[in-house]
Amino acid sequence: MVSHRRLAVADPAAPLTDGGFNPHARAVHIGTLTLENGAALPDVVMTYECWGELNDDASNAVLVEHALTGDSHVVGPVGPGQPTAGWWPGLIGPGAPLDTDELFVVAINVLGGCRGSTGPMSLAPDGRVWGGRFPHVSVRDQARAEARVADALGIAHFHTVIGGSFGGMRAAEWVATFPHRVQRALVVASCAAAGADQIAWGHTQVRAIEADPDFRGGGYLEQGVFPTSGLGLARQIAHTSYRSAHELQERFGRESQGADRTLDGGLFAVESYLEHHAAKLVARFDAMSYVRLTQAMATHDVGRGRGGIEPALRVFGVSSSSPRSTPIGCSRSVPPPTSSGLTGADGCVSSTRRTVTTVSSSKPTRSRRSCARSSPGRSRPRRAASVPWRDGGRSRHLG
Amino acid sequence: MVSHRRLAVADPAAPLTDGGFNPHARAVHIGTLTLENGAALPDVVMTYECWGELNDDASNAVLVEHALTGDSHVVGPVGPGQPTAGWWPGLIGPGAPLDTDELFVVAINVLGGCRGSTGPMSLAPDGRVWGGRFPHVSVRDQARAEARVADALGIAHFHTVIGGSFGGMRAAEWVATFPHRVQRALVVASCAAAGADQIAWGHTQVRAIEADPDFRGGGYLEQGVFPTSGLGLARQIAHTSYRSAHELQERFGRESQGADRTLDGGLFAVESYLEHHAAKLVARFDAMSYVRLTQAMATHDVGRGRGGIEPALRVFGVSSSSPRSTPIGCSRSVPPPTSSGLTGADGCVSSTRRTVTTVSSSKPTRSRRSCARSSPGRSRPRRAASVPWRDGGRSRHLG
Repeated sequence: MVSHRRLAVADPAAPLTDGGFNPHARAVHIGTLTLENGAALPDVVMTYECWGELNDDASNAVLVEHALTGDSHVVGPVGPGQPTAGWWPGLIGPGAPLDTDELFVVAINVLGGCRGSTGPMSLAPDGRVWGGRFPHVSVRDQARAEARVADALGIAHFHTVIGGSFGGMRAAEWVATFPHRVQRALVVASCAAAGADQIAWGHTQVRAIEADPDFRGGGYLEQGVFPTSGLGLARQIAHTSYRSAHELQERFGRESQGADRTLDGGLFAVESYLEHHAAKLVARFDAMSYVRLTQAMATHDVGRGRGGIEPALRVFGVSSSSPRSTPIGCSRSVPPPTSSGLTGADGCVSSTRRTVTTVSSSKPTRSRRSCARSSPGRSRPRRAASVPWRDGGRSRHLG
Repeated sequence: MVSHRRLAVADPAAPLTDGGFNPHARAVHIGTLTLENGAALPDVVMTYECWGELNDDASNAVLVEHALTGDSHVVGPVGPGQPTAGWWPGLIGPGAPLDTDELFVVAINVLGGCRGSTGPMSLAPDGRVWGGRFPHVSVRDQARAEARVADALGIAHFHTVIGGSFGGMRAAEWVATFPHRVQRALVVASCAAAGADQIAWGHTQVRAIEADPDFRGGGYLEQGVFPTSGLGLARQIAHTSYRSAHELQERFGRESQGADRTLDGGLFAVESYLEHHAAKLVARFDAMSYVRLTQAMATHDVGRGRGGIEPALRVFGVSSSSPRSTPIGCSRSVPPPTSSGLTGADGCVSSTRRTVTTVSSSKPTRSRRSCARSSPGRSRPRRAASVPWRDGGRSRHLG
């Protein structure tokens, strides 16, 4: 288990250049953020990756929101500072559904995470790592931090905001908080407010991490330890809760792992699968970030302080089932909670692949901002592309 | 947390009299049991409670199988050595669905548990507590141990075997192992073989307990500690997995616990509910028993070594959906797994109460064995009674 040693501590004084965790990621200083709970989070740095060119009137920007253990690396290979390949390969690029011949695509590492944006691994004003002292942030806080990144990039409104699972929560919150800054939203396998079961599952995961004696109240980093066991168990709980009984049965049934004798306590294949995913996450993710992000998911409610979910989404100018906001369920994972508040969310499909049609825009007239890795100018025919929404069983970033 | 201090260590030398944990429970020495995995478990003691009188030809015996954290105390009050009231109040008694004017009802504490029958808290031949050294037992081993209790009581066959959840697994195993000793079986919210999701959930619970530094490889009792945190977390995982998202949402929604400010990390009501149930279980149940029983559930498969589930149940003389075996789902909890192998199991009902008709028998002609607490001789009209199948949200024994 490599755990935290692989993860550097973000430097709030980092310049607004390439840097941070992923050499392709860029950083924006957004100053002090006053959180929903009243706490002030100073010197916030947000990191992002982008593809394509922002056009002259900044009308072609798309925001892609990553899930719980994902990051800004939506597409692209593993590399230095980037332990995982892109979590939605084929989504972004010339001729891809998010066609960088036309669109400027931005993916921002979430506030409170551990992939470059300010979070529990960052330094607090006293020069020490935040750790367990990192304040509770909400999904609304996260969307507001992202809006400041958009401000810095000169993006007044997004052509489309798209996100799945935890990323879908932020997409929904964007719609409710900045209705005039979002033209379209695509919310996949997510909800407008966390349901009681999501809160319960999150609770067991947070408890698993907190109960690890190496958690040290979140102060493990300064003490040279890491709650490997607790974070691994949290991942196992999460992974099981994401999967339907039917899917697990289909994939693993009652098979034992190799020659293991289950009657003697040997592992079943599904147990080995959970252990494998636990080990993988522990090697690349921070435990305190996992706690704060899980807690953010629990408090997610676009209706808070807005008279409820329906009024909150009405501000977007349309009902929640309007074409402007497209909720999508995932047939291979557990369905979105009944409390999703996104009335179209029951429109599940039967395939593990879904067709995402090209999100089109007017072609860029003049480049205002470009991302070096895209290949601007190479015009390709627009097409409807079949893109795999990563089946969580094989995904590194679900949740 | 009172934990293990409340639980005495069973004495394998206890006489075949009232005694053990519950003064109403009785003990049977069944000798050495050779387990499915080949291990020999010596000096096995099984404890049970009973109600009513066994008739002359021993044709009126009913076996009630308890769930994971239940015990032989199906009905009756809290008392010395009995920390919980009966888990199915009203089920057994004169005029009740299991009418003790006619029936002799037996409930046996499961092998490997912590309520009197031999388990990890019992003494091993070396005079020390078994603890983590207690062998892996299977549901089939448990049914075979129970059959020896039936032998000792002079019961050649049961009029009915009834059980829910883990108790239903033992009922199903009775049917497959002793088809000629079971006339009818009632399997509630259970399955013929554990599905991959049940195995996965069990795995996370076992890991939660094992990861507690006070577990000490199962040797905590001798070291004067108890894995309170781990067992509590296991209970929270189990409790959440038993509940449907819909039920949790209906009961708790997004309510905070009292004046807790959830945006500052305060608890939601559903979190407090989980903590409450964890604390309750930890005060009365043994961690190593929880581990071994959870592992027994994972290996549950009536079809093992019998050519599969269908052939195994065919030995019962009928198909699995026959009137002789009645599988019932519970609408308020998650449905039985798709792999249940009990084809009638999808017959869920919409109420939290279900009608259990009287299980009738010929009246006892002469008493061969009686249980003092029943009131024999007081004949009451036979009736169909509406008996609550304890809603898990309020139940202490689900699972």
